[in-house]
Amino acid sequence: MASFLHTTTRPWAEVEQMLASGDVRGKLAKDDLPTPALCVDLDALTANIGKMANYAQRNGRALRPHGKSHKCSEIARLTLAAGAAGACSAKLGEAEAFAAAGIESVLVTTPMVGRHRVERAVRLAGRMADLILVVDHAENADDLNAAAAAAGVQLTVALDLNVTNRTGVAPGPDAVALAEHITRLPHLKLKGIQAYAGHASHVIGFAERTASSQAAMAPAIATRRALEAKGIPCPWLSGASTGTYNIDGEMDGVTELQPGSYLFMDLDYAGIGSPNGERFDDFAHSLTVLSTVYSMPGREQAILDAGLKSFATDTPFAPQVRGIDGCRYTFAGDEHARLDVRQASSPVQLGDRLELVIPHCDPTVNLYDRIFATRGEQVEAVWRIDARGMSA
Amino acid sequence: MASFLHTTTRPWAEVEQMLASGDVRGKLAKDDLPTPALCVDLDALTANIGKMANYAQRNGRALRPHGKSHKCSEIARLTLAAGAAGACSAKLGEAEAFAAAGIESVLVTTPMVGRHRVERAVRLAGRMADLILVVDHAENADDLNAAAAAAGVQLTVALDLNVTNRTGVAPGPDAVALAEHITRLPHLKLKGIQAYAGHASHVIGFAERTASSQAAMAPAIATRRALEAKGIPCPWLSGASTGTYNIDGEMDGVTELQPGSYLFMDLDYAGIGSPNGERFDDFAHSLTVLSTVYSMPGREQAILDAGLKSFATDTPFAPQVRGIDGCRYTFAGDEHARLDVRQASSPVQLGDRLELVIPHCDPTVNLYDRIFATRGEQVEAVWRIDARGMSA
Repeated sequence: MASFLHTTTRPWAEVEQMLASGDVRGKLAKDDLPTPALCVDLDALTANIGKMANYAQRNGRALRPHGKSHKCSEIARLTLAAGAAGACSAKLGEAEAFAAAGIESVLVTTPMVGRHRVERAVRLAGRMADLILVVDHAENADDLNAAAAAAGVQLTVALDLNVTNRTGVAPGPDAVALAEHITRLPHLKLKGIQAYAGHASHVIGFAERTASSQAAMAPAIATRRALEAKGIPCPWLSGASTGTYNIDGEMDGVTELQPGSYLFMDLDYAGIGSPNGERFDDFAHSLTVLSTVYSMPGREQAILDAGLKSFATDTPFAPQVRGIDGCRYTFAGDEHARLDVRQASSPVQLGDRLELVIPHCDPTVNLYDRIFATRGEQVEAVWRIDARGMSA
Repeated sequence: MASFLHTTTRPWAEVEQMLASGDVRGKLAKDDLPTPALCVDLDALTANIGKMANYAQRNGRALRPHGKSHKCSEIARLTLAAGAAGACSAKLGEAEAFAAAGIESVLVTTPMVGRHRVERAVRLAGRMADLILVVDHAENADDLNAAAAAAGVQLTVALDLNVTNRTGVAPGPDAVALAEHITRLPHLKLKGIQAYAGHASHVIGFAERTASSQAAMAPAIATRRALEAKGIPCPWLSGASTGTYNIDGEMDGVTELQPGSYLFMDLDYAGIGSPNGERFDDFAHSLTVLSTVYSMPGREQAILDAGLKSFATDTPFAPQVRGIDGCRYTFAGDEHARLDVRQASSPVQLGDRLELVIPHCDPTVNLYDRIFATRGEQVEAVWRIDARGMSA
């Protein structure tokens, strides 16, 4: 068995200094990274970004990738460079982080209800070119209007439409009444409608998913038409997830797509099917967790250093070892995992470094402070996940 | 319905400045906190700390609370002030964070195997008074010895004994052979044995849990005796979890207890039973997540701002609303939860702030950057979770 001391390629002090400064390009190997490490493959990420951008452009839709997936301004910037109209954020804190990084157009996809949220949102609107807020209650519209008046600003708002039994005003008359209310408030400007059919995104089978998303989105599109019939301009309707980008993106009336997971792809999305079959492989798995075997209590199992503090566990899927078939991963506590290696297609040994494909990317990203951007065996950049933990 | 704008007690800019400076005492109310917020009740925390410290003292055991639960140097310091012998950390990164905060005695409970880990561990040993490492493979002991020799330091190590089918050397002859190997290495000093029977910690029913922990720990105690029979001093045997503190703490041969969850308590531990019945209420729930109702799509349900990025989801339990009975919480995505309020014992309204008891504390703490230490309705301190995310 090899010594674990003498296989290092460079001293830790040097690695640590590179990680701190971010100056890694051409110097740092993936093999030098402390594990568990969250890694994104730049070729796969760039391909995913390009593919979605091309789809949106070909179909005449704006693209606003959801920042709740990556929480990383560097990645938001890559999507903007590829033609995105802006970013989404789920929470105000994420939008504040993106604004601090110079991103100028952000749609915050949840309502600004709660202590200080209106005040913070108005302040943020004064700091960025294009902040879009969503509203689902008239009282909240009143609050936003009053705060905007006090600050002497104009706020851009959209109706948050409830098409997935979560937040939002009901489509139809309730939504029209809220829109009419907003148009009477001098400091609010109505941009249009947000309709995110989250329940449709993971429906298995393309035909079934299409039916689910169409049923959810039809009332949103009808609400848009109803507003325009009343003379209330509604030029914007934002929806779609990674699972429904090529469903909602074909609908007459949807103007903007807000998918996020396509950037990374995960095991949850991989199984939802596509027009071509059971796999959904429109996008590649770009994100992995690098882990080390740090104990081998017997020949049958390896203990890894990435447990349930290294992966979100809300899906029924377990992380999958890339490049070795027949390994079965099970969580073995907060910091450990157990890998059954009896059927492994190649030997697994103490000190080995394994790459794990992620069950559910969004909440997994939220566990890490940085993403290592790799190309082949090299680390090209260290990106801070600057909106990590910004759930407030 | 109340306006959400005008119910704030002070401007956000003031709150933000207090949160940044940490100067909150006597000024900041719990009601001012942005949500979701992780809060610890100081009275409950202090009582938990005192109760475990008293137990250990009465039973003549050292107490070394596990820092993987709190990841917060401020809390480690509170336990030290109450008589703890030191802290545990699961990972080297946590130990580095505790050392940077001035904590002088840390046991790292997992082996130092993997790129740069030996080198980092040796460096850390040079920076703190009392670092204890664990070893479960002879090759790793050789690596540690060689690195310690090169650095001119002496390392304190313990056998990591596999009593829970995870990391560790097998009790009995294998362990004795590893101990003999270590005693021949001039730069390692053998402190004793770590035997953590993780599988016993959550066994339901006190009698069943006692049987499970006794079966797991007997080989560890026998190994200790075998070492001493060979003339290898073994004055230290560290074990026990929150679930087994008063089981292992009664065993002849166990010298140190390393529980962590007792500081906070969670729903998972609450149901394991005690000598007094079905509830395990030796310690109080001190940790909660404060959340806001930010949408009410109907009278039957409230949408909360704390979803699966705000709670670890590895247990079958859902967060529980404190102070209102009959609410059923279900996750509704990364950032949202749905609260069924049809049977709620008091009305739940838009903008309400609810306190949620946590299913599994350790990985939930790892989602947050700070803990708000509260007493009644006041925030007394803001503690940085300085070892958060330090899984490498």
